[in-house]
Amino acid sequence: MSEVPRQSALAEAICEVEVFKEYEEGLKDIETFSHIFVLYWLHKSEGFSLLVKTPWDDAPHGVFATRSPRRPNPIGISVVKLIERRGNVLVVSGIDAIDGTPLIDIKPFIPEFDSKNANSGWLEGKIKKERV
Amino acid sequence: MSEVPRQSALAEAICEVEVFKEYEEGLKDIETFSHIFVLYWLHKSEGFSLLVKTPWDDAPHGVFATRSPRRPNPIGISVVKLIERRGNVLVVSGIDAIDGTPLIDIKPFIPEFDSKNANSGWLEGKIKKERV
Repeated sequence: MSEVPRQSALAEAICEVEVFKEYEEGLKDIETFSHIFVLYWLHKSEGFSLLVKTPWDDAPHGVFATRSPRRPNPIGISVVKLIERRGNVLVVSGIDAIDGTPLIDIKPFIPEFDSKNANSGWLEGKIKKERV
Repeated sequence: MSEVPRQSALAEAICEVEVFKEYEEGLKDIETFSHIFVLYWLHKSEGFSLLVKTPWDDAPHGVFATRSPRRPNPIGISVVKLIERRGNVLVVSGIDAIDGTPLIDIKPFIPEFDSKNANSGWLEGKIKKERV
């Protein structure tokens, strides 16, 4: 994975997600989906704080109300656009992870289950980005 | 968490997600979000297959193209509606996990990042459910 900015949908860099070759068969039909979840181990994250400040405002928020990497179980998730599959490699855009981040899992993003008419909580109005 | 059916958005049962009391401060401001990600350990899942059959059709699909619990890293995620917070307990609907499932993480669902105009892949047309 390549170095990308702060949050998934703002990170339009294209990068590659590589599944161990021996798990390649588990990707069968993944290319029928336009978007996938990528779960990864935030291996550069050390420790955690229950209250964190984010780049979005000056107020401290509970870590579970943020996407901070410094969390009790440092697992990151990104919903990314699947551009192409090449064998055991998925070419995606919109991932929020640094190069070398260990992959934990891939799941299909299924809009009937996963796409919600949600609010943006304390982030409402702070994110100047159209949905992609 | 209470016993619920197959997939998140089909599971309208209301249940409680409990964070360890010592992590309660990490939930500050979570109640400002309408929807959250819940990550959990699929502790009843044993082993995995790279190709799996699902209730949706008769074809085998790659495990990473399904939400099967029998996966190399048995972590489940659900996007759920947050109904109420009571201290270290979140009352939610739409979770796809059985009672006693260990909680791994909670993250805000941020529509600017996470809500996508996605297709449904090989599941297209198979899910008879309006988006909630």
